[in-house]
Amino acid sequence: MSKVELEDPNYVALCEHNRETGYLISTAALLEWDQQTKMPALASEYRSEQITHLAGLIHERKTDPRIGEWLDQLAHSPLAKDPESDSGATIRILKREYEKRIKLPATLVMELARAASVGQTQWVAARRDNDFDAFAPQLKKIFELKKSEAEAIGYPEVPYDALLDEYESGARTSDVAGILEALRQELVPLVAEIQASSYRAPVDILSRKYPIDHQRKLGRIASEKIGFDYQQGRLDVTHHPFCTELGPSDCRITTRYDENFFSGSFFGTLHEAGHGIYEQGLRAEYYGLPPGKFCSLGIHESQSRLWENLVGRRFSFWQYFYPQAQRLFKDALGDVSLDDFYRAINHVEPSLVRVEADEATYNLHIIIRFELEQAIINGELDTDDLPEAWNEKYRLYLGIESPEVANGVLQDVHWSAGLVGYFPTYSLGNLYASQIFDAASEQLGSLDTLFQEGDFSPLKNWLNVEVHRYGQCLSGPDLGERVTGKQLSHEALMNHLKEKLVPIYGL
Amino acid sequence: MSKVELEDPNYVALCEHNRETGYLISTAALLEWDQQTKMPALASEYRSEQITHLAGLIHERKTDPRIGEWLDQLAHSPLAKDPESDSGATIRILKREYEKRIKLPATLVMELARAASVGQTQWVAARRDNDFDAFAPQLKKIFELKKSEAEAIGYPEVPYDALLDEYESGARTSDVAGILEALRQELVPLVAEIQASSYRAPVDILSRKYPIDHQRKLGRIASEKIGFDYQQGRLDVTHHPFCTELGPSDCRITTRYDENFFSGSFFGTLHEAGHGIYEQGLRAEYYGLPPGKFCSLGIHESQSRLWENLVGRRFSFWQYFYPQAQRLFKDALGDVSLDDFYRAINHVEPSLVRVEADEATYNLHIIIRFELEQAIINGELDTDDLPEAWNEKYRLYLGIESPEVANGVLQDVHWSAGLVGYFPTYSLGNLYASQIFDAASEQLGSLDTLFQEGDFSPLKNWLNVEVHRYGQCLSGPDLGERVTGKQLSHEALMNHLKEKLVPIYGL
Repeated sequence: MSKVELEDPNYVALCEHNRETGYLISTAALLEWDQQTKMPALASEYRSEQITHLAGLIHERKTDPRIGEWLDQLAHSPLAKDPESDSGATIRILKREYEKRIKLPATLVMELARAASVGQTQWVAARRDNDFDAFAPQLKKIFELKKSEAEAIGYPEVPYDALLDEYESGARTSDVAGILEALRQELVPLVAEIQASSYRAPVDILSRKYPIDHQRKLGRIASEKIGFDYQQGRLDVTHHPFCTELGPSDCRITTRYDENFFSGSFFGTLHEAGHGIYEQGLRAEYYGLPPGKFCSLGIHESQSRLWENLVGRRFSFWQYFYPQAQRLFKDALGDVSLDDFYRAINHVEPSLVRVEADEATYNLHIIIRFELEQAIINGELDTDDLPEAWNEKYRLYLGIESPEVANGVLQDVHWSAGLVGYFPTYSLGNLYASQIFDAASEQLGSLDTLFQEGDFSPLKNWLNVEVHRYGQCLSGPDLGERVTGKQLSHEALMNHLKEKLVPIYGL
Repeated sequence: MSKVELEDPNYVALCEHNRETGYLISTAALLEWDQQTKMPALASEYRSEQITHLAGLIHERKTDPRIGEWLDQLAHSPLAKDPESDSGATIRILKREYEKRIKLPATLVMELARAASVGQTQWVAARRDNDFDAFAPQLKKIFELKKSEAEAIGYPEVPYDALLDEYESGARTSDVAGILEALRQELVPLVAEIQASSYRAPVDILSRKYPIDHQRKLGRIASEKIGFDYQQGRLDVTHHPFCTELGPSDCRITTRYDENFFSGSFFGTLHEAGHGIYEQGLRAEYYGLPPGKFCSLGIHESQSRLWENLVGRRFSFWQYFYPQAQRLFKDALGDVSLDDFYRAINHVEPSLVRVEADEATYNLHIIIRFELEQAIINGELDTDDLPEAWNEKYRLYLGIESPEVANGVLQDVHWSAGLVGYFPTYSLGNLYASQIFDAASEQLGSLDTLFQEGDFSPLKNWLNVEVHRYGQCLSGPDLGERVTGKQLSHEALMNHLKEKLVPIYGL
């Protein structure tokens, strides 16, 4: 802390209180990480009790009325003056979070928690049984509660704003909708053109036999090479890959391996390592406070997508890594040219399941969900009509349709868990990633020349300085504009996709 | 809870409060387990802060004055009447712990914590530098503080009673000293006789090459076979092996592997699995309360020693396991007879380092420490004179002497961490183990016949019923007497050692 900060007892108390809450939050994160990775099978019941108890303590601390008092005292402090300074951002963001929290009636918070818990259990069964009707009443209830949440919080234009703000603070629904609409209008015809092309990438080579030990080795080498620090992190195996941080020098990522599929674990590891590099790039001295926290989910996703797609699926990346991959996977890749491999990992084809989608069509999956959840929250669509609305959009945007709700409207966990307003951040991540990558290229010169030599540190260091170190001092939109010099738009992503796909598919 | 328990709001509140404290204690245990096993290298600083914060919360809860009020209300309740009943033991033990805690001045608690923290750091350096003088002032300070602790708590006969009670509640120094003195008087001549014998067991076979993967496999198989439940547990690798519980169905053990030594990991795994079987045998419904907690350190150690030594070093155990071991370690054991192997794993020889000592001489290491720390606490020895006193006892009891304090008086972490009164529980464990094993043999018939067939469940189930399920409802001495029908003495252990060692060494 600076001298002037240390002299304000309210500011010191506020920060200390939040840092202490951080001990509990990071401890709860360890309980969850362990549950996913190491915990013995029969320990889950007690683990839930431990997590619930900690969540209660954290909630108590976060609604401690002293926070309101400290913030009141700080309202006119010089420390609050510059909203982008470390102290200004701390005060601004803790105030926003505290006010939001106390606006929500405790009964609503509890109802939401219960509905999400019941919802996830029902969703698992409904998905297994391919039975939308079994889940429909609970889904309606969850969306009704999310509407109540939006009303309790308040919003500038539409109720959806309130929910989006939880994950992408500073973004308005109208802005995001405008950008994604423009993206859709260019993406749908591009995907249709690719579908109509006579060329088909040799994707079957990716389904040859890739021994898991060697997959693990290459994933570890590549994630370390791009800058994930294993002195401050780990890589483990879970069914659903994720990245979590348990302290300022403890970020853990996970992946899953399929002996008969190369891309899943490799690009999954790069993706999670990208999230991890962001976490490791935050300022440790602000751990537990807004300047040391990730900006928004969209910015977080931009960092994972940047390393996974913009870097990891780039020709120059593989000019460096392909010889290693060929040595490790002699049987699978010995007879495959770098060019064919590059085409295979960039193959584009409409499919039903979001998490398996390619770099281009992925965004259409997101746009569909974003349009549907907006329509429900803003009162234009009834949840009971979701299956039909879902299929209609898949027909229109992707030219395909799922005969089964399990692979259709029931495929994602998000809504069942009350995560409404979350989906668009995935595409915002892709958009930011392209725009940020372009800005880095402009400032650093030819990244391809560096990548060919296996030198990823200039890009990583640039991201540390230009993106990571801000934490929450800037909002997502403001950070994007600061880094890239322009407002977020669909253009950089579309350019990037066209540059890559037009030559591959001879469009 | 029973109906009558549920009807007493003070009892319900007391139990609920303790169960909630249990969430924090088990969570702190996870933070520590993770620190030893999985945590990235650079995360230790923040991890210490997390652990310290949780320790503070736990201490606050444990000294909550409401505990005193509930206990006052319960003093004359029918629930407190039978001190061995679940409710009676709960009230009795929580009262004892609460009163002890509030007797200790906060300043003393903090001074002790600081002295132990400084002590451990200084001890590491002093041991590395083989320099007792560098550690002597801090060691003196620690023992002075422990004397103050004993005075603050109070004691029936000698100050050492107060410290011993922390680890072995219900045991008096005079009783323990009497038993260990009798043990020493028989053990010293037995070890001397073995030393004088012309027979030398073929111990070098244990230092052949034992591939670590196969050590891991055999350790896992054997620990599971004797009853450690991996659905409720794990086995990991650490530098210092330990067993910890993180919940009623989550007990984790660790071991370390040395490719050139068979016994370390194998018997270490059995030892920790023995601790784990005890934890897994406690009643889950009482988790976090005295009836669901281990009785004492001596009883805990009896369970590890029983499986490690009484079972694991028994001929019949290896009649079952040796063919498997020979298959796994063809190069090392292919040409070794079962008889030679059995003699090697039971080899007895005086040595300087406690943790590497054999089953017989181990107790002499413990007796030396017990005698020395008693003498210091009771004012008969000055810590500055420890090195000489140490060497004198090693000469007398074991016939050897360390030229270096690093392998002498500085070898153990305990005193530097303020753990005074802890050492004798290791030998109490050995004594209880022999006596309990004899009781089991009497009641179950020939255990050897079962072991030869790989059937360890009758013994394990018997221990569950006769030892584990009591938790803290009985004290160590009372439990020992209940299970074995007699007071603790040196006889069972001596008989067991003689039965095994007299034929091996042809005495």
